[in-house]
Amino acid sequence: MKRITNDVFVEKAIKLEPKLIEKQVKPINIVSINKSGKVEPRAEIGELELFTLKKGESIVLDFGDHQVGYVSLKLKSIGSPQDAPAYLRLKFGEVPKEITENSEEYNGWISRSWIQEEYIHLDVLPTWLHLPRRYAFRFLEIYAVDTSLKFQVVVEEVVCRAVSAVDMEEVEPISASDPVLQRMDKVSLRTLLNCMQSVFEDGPKRDRRLWLGDLRLQALANYATFKDYELVKRCMYLFAGLIRDDGAIGACLFTEPEYLVDDTFMFDYSLFFISTLKDYYEATYDIKTVEELWPSAYRQIELSRMCFNERNVVQEGDSNWCFVDWKEGLNKQASAQAIYIYALNDGIVLAEALDKVQLADELKEERKRFVSAALNYFWDDKQGVFISGEKRQISYVSQVWMVLAGVKAGEEARMLMDRIVELKPEMGMVTPYMNHHFVEALILCGEKEKAIDYMKYYWGGMLFQGADTFWELYNPDNPQESPYGSSAVNSYCHAWSCTPAYLLRKLSDEV
Amino acid sequence: MKRITNDVFVEKAIKLEPKLIEKQVKPINIVSINKSGKVEPRAEIGELELFTLKKGESIVLDFGDHQVGYVSLKLKSIGSPQDAPAYLRLKFGEVPKEITENSEEYNGWISRSWIQEEYIHLDVLPTWLHLPRRYAFRFLEIYAVDTSLKFQVVVEEVVCRAVSAVDMEEVEPISASDPVLQRMDKVSLRTLLNCMQSVFEDGPKRDRRLWLGDLRLQALANYATFKDYELVKRCMYLFAGLIRDDGAIGACLFTEPEYLVDDTFMFDYSLFFISTLKDYYEATYDIKTVEELWPSAYRQIELSRMCFNERNVVQEGDSNWCFVDWKEGLNKQASAQAIYIYALNDGIVLAEALDKVQLADELKEERKRFVSAALNYFWDDKQGVFISGEKRQISYVSQVWMVLAGVKAGEEARMLMDRIVELKPEMGMVTPYMNHHFVEALILCGEKEKAIDYMKYYWGGMLFQGADTFWELYNPDNPQESPYGSSAVNSYCHAWSCTPAYLLRKLSDEV
Repeated sequence: MKRITNDVFVEKAIKLEPKLIEKQVKPINIVSINKSGKVEPRAEIGELELFTLKKGESIVLDFGDHQVGYVSLKLKSIGSPQDAPAYLRLKFGEVPKEITENSEEYNGWISRSWIQEEYIHLDVLPTWLHLPRRYAFRFLEIYAVDTSLKFQVVVEEVVCRAVSAVDMEEVEPISASDPVLQRMDKVSLRTLLNCMQSVFEDGPKRDRRLWLGDLRLQALANYATFKDYELVKRCMYLFAGLIRDDGAIGACLFTEPEYLVDDTFMFDYSLFFISTLKDYYEATYDIKTVEELWPSAYRQIELSRMCFNERNVVQEGDSNWCFVDWKEGLNKQASAQAIYIYALNDGIVLAEALDKVQLADELKEERKRFVSAALNYFWDDKQGVFISGEKRQISYVSQVWMVLAGVKAGEEARMLMDRIVELKPEMGMVTPYMNHHFVEALILCGEKEKAIDYMKYYWGGMLFQGADTFWELYNPDNPQESPYGSSAVNSYCHAWSCTPAYLLRKLSDEV
Repeated sequence: MKRITNDVFVEKAIKLEPKLIEKQVKPINIVSINKSGKVEPRAEIGELELFTLKKGESIVLDFGDHQVGYVSLKLKSIGSPQDAPAYLRLKFGEVPKEITENSEEYNGWISRSWIQEEYIHLDVLPTWLHLPRRYAFRFLEIYAVDTSLKFQVVVEEVVCRAVSAVDMEEVEPISASDPVLQRMDKVSLRTLLNCMQSVFEDGPKRDRRLWLGDLRLQALANYATFKDYELVKRCMYLFAGLIRDDGAIGACLFTEPEYLVDDTFMFDYSLFFISTLKDYYEATYDIKTVEELWPSAYRQIELSRMCFNERNVVQEGDSNWCFVDWKEGLNKQASAQAIYIYALNDGIVLAEALDKVQLADELKEERKRFVSAALNYFWDDKQGVFISGEKRQISYVSQVWMVLAGVKAGEEARMLMDRIVELKPEMGMVTPYMNHHFVEALILCGEKEKAIDYMKYYWGGMLFQGADTFWELYNPDNPQESPYGSSAVNSYCHAWSCTPAYLLRKLSDEV
């Protein structure tokens, strides 16, 4: 793969880098966490200095809410003079369960380096230990791996310098009086705030990168709440500035040690650059930015066309060619067809905004052909649903994307959504990302109550599990599920789960 | 225990703090170490960058000799962009075996925090990792606990900033042509150099403190080699400046976070302040320092007198009241009696140097009474050896100290040493510290050949085991022995083992 850089775009992005807002946060409680993850109060925070840690002893501090930031600990020794280094293990948990999990037993397939755990030797106490890394956490366990027979360790003070590009005080609460919805909004906002750093990160614990699929949803939630348009603009210029030599926009970007597009490219994520730009335009009417970025956006349409056969039906690539959802065994062909049409819709809006009348007309013509192909190839009239792939797989996602793309609309779409819920196909949705699109589709069909009920079931389920921020992954039938072979590396504050703040405001605007 | 400080003395010590000499040292080889600690070459150091470390892979670097210093690593990633933190374990070993020992299995009774092992997360590569702690090592293992499926870690460069108060180039080699003695001298010098830091440390790996018993021997070796008189003076002022409220000089001192005497006091170590001052005087003729420190030295005699009964026989305290040696079950009463007389001898030298004629005479009288008590109470005429304790224990140490104190001298002493070697009592010597005194006693009796033979057997045994520096502990019958329940925390560069450099020069002077 060959990368090319548009220096002008990257320079613009660099100039838009936010100065992070810092807040000093202190723990509010000393707690115990049992094996099943239940949190019990253990002592008042004012009693912190009463805990004298000797070999094998620990305390767990509760910071009251999910934090993203830099932690400093003021430590001293008591007893005889410190005759050996103090050896501490610090473990940060977004959720209580992370504290109790034994990292040694981790055998997932992604890197155990994501487990937020540090082993630290302190040769000389007292000291302020300033940890150089950023952590995402609510709970911090301080465990004395060893001291010596002659001294113990006392934690005098712990401070987190929490960081974000935005401030919670900038957001108006939702009007709903339902306490579950109020809580859902609060947790959504916290999720979004904690993911808004130098870029929109997918998760501040893991993997802390700018992903286009996540960006699109974060941007929508941001327009409805924090309204930090500059950060979205920055991220779009990064994606447009760092591309493959054929003009393809990557699925994700690194910002350190330098701005760099990853070697992952996905059909849907590349196309969502168009949608992200269109959403940005509708939020800001910043036509200058649209003008500059339109060629990059349009290039994604051109590249995607190569994936279609002469009958305008999308051809599948390897297993990761298109994201859609993590559901194993999911066939993504119908969704990809729909997502292309969805992107065309947004492309038409942008072309019209730019007064590119001829191009807009051409795209509309193209849309017709591709919708027609979608109906011919994927619609199963007998079953009344869209199927996908050679094995004619029935899934939620195919219906959702066809509805969102407008291939079915109005009453037809509403009935289709009813039908798929009734059918309850084995090919369900596993990511909050896909569940968001399901709710979007319900709202589009006018099923507002169903949308709210489903949000209460899905995001409400995470609240019931004690979420302070919404998770990367939530399966109501198996809350401990992980796509990584172990929940120890799950991200429990994940951008693509933050959309209730957007959906709830959208529902309330439309009421 | 109440501490008091003589600020004038501590100020003098602070002014004498050495500026450490720094040398940049790089690894010379990439090696493999098998389970039994055998080192095999693996690759040229120039091939370092060819090793791309993925999860579970490691390299071991050989720095060619024992180093004490600060280590920096230049690291980069290769493969796809680094999509997860690199998680490394760095393990430093003074001897090869430390690299292969599993720290998890450590179950010794002193702190596992002494194991020189760090777990490090690196969020962004490439980077220079500058480790803040000082290590004592020859071997460094760099183990990739985890990377990710998409990248590997490459070690581009490793540098050690080695530190010492002295420089090897200041020392004349010994005249002996025997390669074993030459090597023994080199290893002794390296041991001493690496223990000479801001103070004379007992061991740069563990426990990095100033102990009076070690200081006395280091000072002797230093006078014969590096001749850094200021560092000895500094350490004496620290001991005299930081005392118990009754004037007792401590067994050891901390220098960080502040100068502080430990709460350990031992009969013999306190008395050795006198001997250390006398040795310093004989090396420097610095009578001003002797004048200033004499009251502190003499106070140790006064305090020790309280340990004797009306028959001038020393009364034993608890198990750690007097160090002598680590041999389990060792009775220390006879040794303590002898060490008091040994200190009196040195006190008499100092009193005379200070023209304290009357006091010198009083001390000589006292000496006579205590020697007489030693002969009456501890000498077993039938067996022709000194016994110790109520159970009349026969040990090497009692004979050695009685000879060093001059309770037996000349031909009588020589025969006594012969006898004890022949008897080979179960109560042997386990520390190089005590083995040093055994050799000193042999030399005092004129048994120079036996002294050299014994040194070849004892320190030569460590050389045969591959020592680059001499160890805290060496039992020729069980080279892996540890007083701590595990050799993982043994110190393999230990001050009290450095004396061959002194003994060999003494032997050559006397020849």
